[in-house]
Amino acid sequence: MAKPTLPQGTRDFSPDTVRKRNFILSTVKNVFGLYGFQPLETPAMENLETLMGKYGEEGDKLIFRVLNNGLNDPKNIEKSRAAFENTLQGKNDANLTSRALRYDLTIPFARYVAMNHGQLVYPFKRYQVQPVWRADRPQKGRYREFYQCDADVVGSTSLMNEVDLAMIYHDAFTALKIDGYELRVNSRKILAGLSEHINAKERLEEMTIVIDKLDKIGHDKVFEELSRKGFTEWQVKQIGTYLNIGVKNQNEEKLSLVKELLGDTGTAKKGIAELEFILDKVKGKNINLVVDFTLARGLNYYTGIIFEAKAPASVQIGSIGGGGRYDDLTGLFGVPNIPGVGISFGVDRIYDVMEEMAIFPTSLDISTTVLFFNEGEEQLKFVFEIAGSLRKKNISCEIYPDQDKEEKQFKYAVRKRIQFIFSSDLGNYKLKNLVTSESFNFTASEVHTETFTGKIESIISSHK
Amino acid sequence: MAKPTLPQGTRDFSPDTVRKRNFILSTVKNVFGLYGFQPLETPAMENLETLMGKYGEEGDKLIFRVLNNGLNDPKNIEKSRAAFENTLQGKNDANLTSRALRYDLTIPFARYVAMNHGQLVYPFKRYQVQPVWRADRPQKGRYREFYQCDADVVGSTSLMNEVDLAMIYHDAFTALKIDGYELRVNSRKILAGLSEHINAKERLEEMTIVIDKLDKIGHDKVFEELSRKGFTEWQVKQIGTYLNIGVKNQNEEKLSLVKELLGDTGTAKKGIAELEFILDKVKGKNINLVVDFTLARGLNYYTGIIFEAKAPASVQIGSIGGGGRYDDLTGLFGVPNIPGVGISFGVDRIYDVMEEMAIFPTSLDISTTVLFFNEGEEQLKFVFEIAGSLRKKNISCEIYPDQDKEEKQFKYAVRKRIQFIFSSDLGNYKLKNLVTSESFNFTASEVHTETFTGKIESIISSHK
Repeated sequence: MAKPTLPQGTRDFSPDTVRKRNFILSTVKNVFGLYGFQPLETPAMENLETLMGKYGEEGDKLIFRVLNNGLNDPKNIEKSRAAFENTLQGKNDANLTSRALRYDLTIPFARYVAMNHGQLVYPFKRYQVQPVWRADRPQKGRYREFYQCDADVVGSTSLMNEVDLAMIYHDAFTALKIDGYELRVNSRKILAGLSEHINAKERLEEMTIVIDKLDKIGHDKVFEELSRKGFTEWQVKQIGTYLNIGVKNQNEEKLSLVKELLGDTGTAKKGIAELEFILDKVKGKNINLVVDFTLARGLNYYTGIIFEAKAPASVQIGSIGGGGRYDDLTGLFGVPNIPGVGISFGVDRIYDVMEEMAIFPTSLDISTTVLFFNEGEEQLKFVFEIAGSLRKKNISCEIYPDQDKEEKQFKYAVRKRIQFIFSSDLGNYKLKNLVTSESFNFTASEVHTETFTGKIESIISSHK
Repeated sequence: MAKPTLPQGTRDFSPDTVRKRNFILSTVKNVFGLYGFQPLETPAMENLETLMGKYGEEGDKLIFRVLNNGLNDPKNIEKSRAAFENTLQGKNDANLTSRALRYDLTIPFARYVAMNHGQLVYPFKRYQVQPVWRADRPQKGRYREFYQCDADVVGSTSLMNEVDLAMIYHDAFTALKIDGYELRVNSRKILAGLSEHINAKERLEEMTIVIDKLDKIGHDKVFEELSRKGFTEWQVKQIGTYLNIGVKNQNEEKLSLVKELLGDTGTAKKGIAELEFILDKVKGKNINLVVDFTLARGLNYYTGIIFEAKAPASVQIGSIGGGGRYDDLTGLFGVPNIPGVGISFGVDRIYDVMEEMAIFPTSLDISTTVLFFNEGEEQLKFVFEIAGSLRKKNISCEIYPDQDKEEKQFKYAVRKRIQFIFSSDLGNYKLKNLVTSESFNFTASEVHTETFTGKIESIISSHK
């Protein structure tokens, strides 16, 4: 049989990688928990109708649909065939595919809140860390299965939630040692204010989508596109003045400049007040919060504060997280008026950033702490006891299962990145640290005492 | 819009449940790690050909297939239609579905080992804890998405691996406080010896499948079925003698009885020696290992030691885990001669056992440790500082985001199962433990000192 392969755009995560990924995920989850967010999990499959129409026409095409079972059951065959013809015409037919793989964690969360509305305690603060699937064309850094890592609070309009979420970014990046991250912040209300200021309130969305491209295409192309879309010269110039605020300024200066420009609209004023509230609350917290009026965030359901976390400029990886406030999470599912605010961490990108900055703790390079060599029945009995005692102290150890040549056992330890090996030679015992090459020697009378496990334990703890 | 629903047989896990499930999973993963097993993750989707034909005809029908995207692309339409007609005839056609959701963790593991054969360090010890999907008819305790939790070691024939796996069951159940669990053990070689003993070596599989039903249908029905299948009266009687060994006996007696019955076949002798080796190694470890010759385990790829973990008899839940040794994991994928042994924990059942025995740690009932009441701007500034300091000590806390009525904030704390609330009244401050109803009162001058966070911290630590 031919060598098996993986579906395009999917990945296996080998142990070395899982340890590092888990370090990121458990760090972020722990921070979520410290702020009172609780874990939620939803199933991989949702009803097709739950997902369809929520991600725009392009999004719909990228949803992985699951084929119903029993299509060729004699009593279903005609229905199945009709359903397939509908599908070929671009319609969704539950007789062919009634389920699909989740495309993000937001819609399943909204579906959960709508289904459990009466039982939930508001403000409801949940985090969710699960894979999602998208039939995107695979390319560097883009996968068909990837993890999302979201925290949202719904049922509260207080800006204290935004403050908490900003602090969560700060605490998580600090714990991961991603120094030099930037947390960009803006308010959609300021963008709305800009649209009012240029008398184009009804074109807010259109304007926002173009501004959102600034990073990719630059100022000139943005102005061109705005003109092409029929924004007047004056309007484009005003937008230009807005986009030029504060490339280099301090947050306070930027705010005063935007007040000068847009201070005449009530909506902008509200947005400015939001930013001022947050900046005031996090003062003295060392958080690298950068007001960035060019920040727009493409998705159009945001209505207030928006965030984007950027990797340190040195690594050129760009966005490693984002989020914002929305007015109505569950209206789509028949439960209106549940506002909320949420953020997301880009796990794959954070992994790349940490690799590039070489800041994963070196302890993650180690698999097992101690390997006991297998040197025959007598020795086995003895090390089996020590291994058991060490495990009770939460120290991981292995006994090499087969009585292979010493060289082979040694190679196993090195290749598996085991920290210590324990072996004996003519009645002399040795614990060797493979990372530092230090050795600790013991006589037979030393190793066969009650206190020996304690000795090993203290050597190991002092080499963490 | 109608209230949204979940696909049949799938579940949301709300925070209270996730905390408990994570307690089980992290306990088991920790034990895996203590024995040198390393985490592996594979993608949810596999190529359809990787999965098909691996689980028998019935299994194939239960695999969830994922519809290819772009079926209605004009250049694909004719191919799509032909592929669909093939599917209606019960054939798999990669032009309709080239991918499917994994059905278990064993085949993806085998696929991974075959793909990475040259790079792996053997013995390769991996654990894997991920969801799997099966289109089973949903019923009580049977779901279409559920977690499997497996540990396998491949590339070693040493029985020390079996010893480790038995100890892993013991350590994990002990850590979970599932007292009264039983770990049943047998060797397929003994069943093979029995088939040789009754001169029906070629009917081993057939015999094993019937014996496997003993628990469900009882001795009489097993004998009936054997007779119906053409086993002679003498053969059935010998099988009966075998099945009657040791319902009440100690392990040693059982072994001597089976030696008496089957000691004439070499295969049985090997199986007996395997059991003796393991029993000898775990002597004095308090592990509740029960030799059970009636244990067969339906799946027919096992060739040596087999395990089944049973919940304490009092809860009547039955099997909570199982596994065994196999000779050839990856032959199906073109890489022959990789033997291994593995076990699995039944996460959903273990959850039910622990609920019924009421042995989940009570700490899992608590969500956040402290809620600071929101009592206006001045107070907010103050509690924001304390909350920040407590979080640095890894104590979770929330500040209620809105300045709602005290009653509403209190209700939030109670319903969310927060352990402590911190509030003030006319300059007097109070930390109240909602679980024990104890209160700790402080004056304004006490709370505004540098040592106050330390005081709260020590109260909290003493109430864990």
